[in-house]
Amino acid sequence: MSKRVLCLITDGFEEIETITPVDLLRRGGVEVIITSMGEGIHVTGRSGITMHADAKFAEVDVSTFDLLFIPGGPQVAALRVDARVLTTARIFASAGKAIAAICAAPLVLHEAGLLNGKAYTAHDSTYSELLDAKPDQRVVMDGNLITSRGVGTALDFGLTLLAYLSGAEESARVAKAIMA
Amino acid sequence: MSKRVLCLITDGFEEIETITPVDLLRRGGVEVIITSMGEGIHVTGRSGITMHADAKFAEVDVSTFDLLFIPGGPQVAALRVDARVLTTARIFASAGKAIAAICAAPLVLHEAGLLNGKAYTAHDSTYSELLDAKPDQRVVMDGNLITSRGVGTALDFGLTLLAYLSGAEESARVAKAIMA
Repeated sequence: MSKRVLCLITDGFEEIETITPVDLLRRGGVEVIITSMGEGIHVTGRSGITMHADAKFAEVDVSTFDLLFIPGGPQVAALRVDARVLTTARIFASAGKAIAAICAAPLVLHEAGLLNGKAYTAHDSTYSELLDAKPDQRVVMDGNLITSRGVGTALDFGLTLLAYLSGAEESARVAKAIMA
Repeated sequence: MSKRVLCLITDGFEEIETITPVDLLRRGGVEVIITSMGEGIHVTGRSGITMHADAKFAEVDVSTFDLLFIPGGPQVAALRVDARVLTTARIFASAGKAIAAICAAPLVLHEAGLLNGKAYTAHDSTYSELLDAKPDQRVVMDGNLITSRGVGTALDFGLTLLAYLSGAEESARVAKAIMA
């Protein structure tokens, strides 16, 4: 059975940070459910692109996923104070499942208390809050926690998630196909 | 007045190749009109993401744009036989305006007769037709023609388009902001 990824977005998602990992994971046979935290499935990103989520949050069973993926963008201000998101992150962590966050999205995991003692990176705009972020690394993996810096590292991040879920060989196959 | 980009898509567009340049250009103050060649504005990419185009082709005045951008993906099979697309490309070329194509999309310019004697690159899946493509370069600029290899080079391509339209300084500012 293919691995399943729960991707959480709302208005103000960063388009490249969301779509790059989703596209790469789907190329590698991973099932990704883009899930809207808002009222409907039409969600507009920080650069004005409206896309259709695959589901609304109330429609998904979070226990059926292997990895939680939270993209960055201005949406992080809403996601970090959304109890549904914090609870979901804690459920994944308690179950020993993977959590991936890019750009400002590690702030959500900080709110959920999931960054303590972990190695991680994030966007430099978050460093006043995320004191232990590693600015010199494009992607950081610490156990089941995978983090990345932002738009400029979204491709590396997506290929790392694919390697984590489907193996290094499949990730290398996709990297070759896209002429990375 | 800000520079204007006409981006042409239809079902089967490559999501990363479309959205990465659009996002980066908008971050740099360029106006991009994502234009659907189909019946409506809901367009579905090769990786299953449906997004809203900003306009339908019949609604845009191609003479008001500074640069024509054609993303890749399976959509290229449709675009290369679409007389509206070939005519638009020839109008831009005749006016000395810029044309940008990534992945398989240089095939559209090949159909329009616009690659003869030009330096360009493209995805390796096109090399049986595009005999002069330069596989070792991520982005090739020859006068007003800007081409790139695919998903793996979409970020470099987007930053190059931004530098072309808004200057190297603005492109460098955006590259720094996204932690490229």
